[in-house]
Amino acid sequence: MEFKKFLQIESEEAWEKYIPTLSIDSVIFSFHQHSLHVLLLKMKDMDAWGLPGGYVEKTENVDQAAVRILKDRTGTENIYLHQFHTFGDRNRSEDAFSEYDDSIWYKQRFISIGYYALAEYSKVSLVIDEFSSTVEWHSIDNLPSFMMDHRAIFEKALLTLREQVNHHPIGYNLLPEKFTMPELQKLYEGILGKKLNRGNFYRKFLRYDILTKLDESRKGGAHKAPDLYSFDLEKYNNALKEGLKGGW
Amino acid sequence: MEFKKFLQIESEEAWEKYIPTLSIDSVIFSFHQHSLHVLLLKMKDMDAWGLPGGYVEKTENVDQAAVRILKDRTGTENIYLHQFHTFGDRNRSEDAFSEYDDSIWYKQRFISIGYYALAEYSKVSLVIDEFSSTVEWHSIDNLPSFMMDHRAIFEKALLTLREQVNHHPIGYNLLPEKFTMPELQKLYEGILGKKLNRGNFYRKFLRYDILTKLDESRKGGAHKAPDLYSFDLEKYNNALKEGLKGGW
Repeated sequence: MEFKKFLQIESEEAWEKYIPTLSIDSVIFSFHQHSLHVLLLKMKDMDAWGLPGGYVEKTENVDQAAVRILKDRTGTENIYLHQFHTFGDRNRSEDAFSEYDDSIWYKQRFISIGYYALAEYSKVSLVIDEFSSTVEWHSIDNLPSFMMDHRAIFEKALLTLREQVNHHPIGYNLLPEKFTMPELQKLYEGILGKKLNRGNFYRKFLRYDILTKLDESRKGGAHKAPDLYSFDLEKYNNALKEGLKGGW
Repeated sequence: MEFKKFLQIESEEAWEKYIPTLSIDSVIFSFHQHSLHVLLLKMKDMDAWGLPGGYVEKTENVDQAAVRILKDRTGTENIYLHQFHTFGDRNRSEDAFSEYDDSIWYKQRFISIGYYALAEYSKVSLVIDEFSSTVEWHSIDNLPSFMMDHRAIFEKALLTLREQVNHHPIGYNLLPEKFTMPELQKLYEGILGKKLNRGNFYRKFLRYDILTKLDESRKGGAHKAPDLYSFDLEKYNNALKEGLKGGW
């Protein structure tokens, strides 16, 4: 079916089913090949990339809707999901559907509730939905053009990670169960947007006393095999309650 | 006019003017007599206390609406205002207007965007609006019953202050221009919800290097007059960009 026609039919159901004017957009982060990644979709008929989003059913709690949308649009589930900001500028989506009829659902003013999600890269099986032509992870060091205000939503999510890194289990949710200290440091550098001194980073993390050093090391590679660590979840959660001590 | 009738007339205008299903609630903090305070209203016809709130006009940005509502309902303006969380449970306001007709604006499902505000106690002149019988500051150590989920909204705001105290100019906006170290410590104890060691607190704040010690002391009182300090705003803002170092 032609995409414009599809949107028209879809609209009629949407007005019945969803709360008008309200949308959800999710910024899904993962960590892969030493860099933070974000999940982006390319909608059919559009050039720019967008965050996976959707609408709140009239009978749903907003947090439930965020979980459902993530699953429907990207196939991800059971991942750490946290609301971070609501985007309500009047003209934030003004031009996105300018060529469409005024009656289509997508053309109204939307106030969008932003969630960030933290996923372990290897555990996500991406599923493409009916609205999209592509779904892909993009390194945050090399991002494409975004639709509407989605770049600003992404940036606010990253800033929130930065502010919350001492209070939320961000490392635990982004890394695989076993990881090396250089990987942990790269992750923090990605979140904080700056290089960290290796010695200071190691000392600080060991002082937190939230890691367990495993009796194994990373196999393969030309260098000496690096030690593997995992989070001691009980100690980590206790430390987060008070907030990990110290800025970066 | 009888309040029920007033709400009915008010409703007809509201459906025209505002975005349905969306509200704003504000948690306004100040610091007074050694304790954090929050501004509460008692609505006419209701026993419980509520946060000052309102609705977003169809032509307004959400942030503009938050500023306008604060001014309309409490007389406060030019104060630090920061969005912190959106509350979207399906049944959050279910029982609040159960005795009223279904057509009234106030009875619909509302998803509420929460803002916290930081005010200097002495600078706020409270103004009572047409919906309320009382507007008052309440110490957070001694709070009355709240309507709907307003207690949960207040608690989430306080938790947010706690998480953001190293990243946002919270001390600067709550204290008068000149303050003593014991006042600053009491403010931090209120936000963090725990007693702090006096010596550690002083040392930590002096290490931040964001205070200016003034050539004057607090007059009056039986004890030795304590020294007065003020924030060095340039240094404070620079330090907040990176985040103040260290947990509490």
